[in-house]
Amino acid sequence: MREMVGIKERAERQISKAVIKRLPRYRRYLGDLQKKGVEKISSKDLSELIGYTASQIRQDLNNFGGFGQQGYGYSVDYLYEEIGNILGLNKTYKMVIVGYGRLGQAMANYITSHEHNFKIAGIFDVKQIIQDVEFKGAEILTCGSLANFVAKEGIDIAVITVPAEKAQIVADTVTRAGIRGIWNFTAVDLDLPEGVACEDVHVSDSLHALAYYMQDMK
Amino acid sequence: MREMVGIKERAERQISKAVIKRLPRYRRYLGDLQKKGVEKISSKDLSELIGYTASQIRQDLNNFGGFGQQGYGYSVDYLYEEIGNILGLNKTYKMVIVGYGRLGQAMANYITSHEHNFKIAGIFDVKQIIQDVEFKGAEILTCGSLANFVAKEGIDIAVITVPAEKAQIVADTVTRAGIRGIWNFTAVDLDLPEGVACEDVHVSDSLHALAYYMQDMK
Repeated sequence: MREMVGIKERAERQISKAVIKRLPRYRRYLGDLQKKGVEKISSKDLSELIGYTASQIRQDLNNFGGFGQQGYGYSVDYLYEEIGNILGLNKTYKMVIVGYGRLGQAMANYITSHEHNFKIAGIFDVKQIIQDVEFKGAEILTCGSLANFVAKEGIDIAVITVPAEKAQIVADTVTRAGIRGIWNFTAVDLDLPEGVACEDVHVSDSLHALAYYMQDMK
Repeated sequence: MREMVGIKERAERQISKAVIKRLPRYRRYLGDLQKKGVEKISSKDLSELIGYTASQIRQDLNNFGGFGQQGYGYSVDYLYEEIGNILGLNKTYKMVIVGYGRLGQAMANYITSHEHNFKIAGIFDVKQIIQDVEFKGAEILTCGSLANFVAKEGIDIAVITVPAEKAQIVADTVTRAGIRGIWNFTAVDLDLPEGVACEDVHVSDSLHALAYYMQDMK
């Protein structure tokens, strides 16, 4: 029953963005179960935990070959591992953080303490940071050297935490220097060349959705 | 053509979460157009700008009564205003920030400079903050006084930026004290009573989705 769909076969299918968005959530719950020593789980129990229907979960995982065994359920370790592989978390990624205000600092702390596959190689700011010349092994540099650094160090991902009006110019700089992924925290939708992946954390959109849900509740 | 669907009528229909998630984005683009002095826009031009299909846009807005005039397009000011009303951005909300590390500080800065409908009334941390006793008019207090403050001040929204293992206890405290909305930045899905709206910013899920897209591009 444990059939793996090859990377090539997978690439030929179009997995919907909604499915991809749910995978990290599955993995997060499986990680919690692992910590509690749980070895296997049925799609029904997983469904109660995560809050998606059991059929939704089976359908999502079937996109990648299933992973379940009839009458046994899912092996927690195996599924955690395989979802990690699907997401590409079996590799490490070199990052730069561009913009070292409070948010950049928060993300630097978060990544170094929680995301061991993502290594911060450099941190960039318009201002010369005087109080910290490095952050846990990552150099802190001014933006003038950003393009060279990205190209020379073979950086995979730029985390953009600059003010909105600077976002596109930073994106242009890093994409020209060969970046493959952008994690964008600004309120701007970036204009990017093909082949560059982008994930946005638009906090303003999130807050406004919350305002909607609050009215809807009354 | 400009029919408004009443709040009551709207509440009886079920607007999908996906539509709600797109509304702040429409409003954001309309705000940019306003700043550029654009007065009207067709759904086709809006579509090219935002990246959704024109029919998607029309369909989304029809959930709320349409707002467009045949052969004229959308009035930018009017649509910006109406989407704001739908989202509940014609009101003000009183907030507390719970957790005043880097992320809490970043969110306090962001809200006070960009989100004028959301007023930070208090900021809470486990530690006594000595260097700042207040932040732009908001008191900075220790968590022991959180429940009282929320109840007494009639706080609408709690922004939770504490470590993951403290998230649920903070949520329990503020919901018991009568909060109506939670903006959750922790990696935890909170267990909340009915009638409390919640919007999660799960940065870890977002980063892992980015890792997936990066593989998918190769």
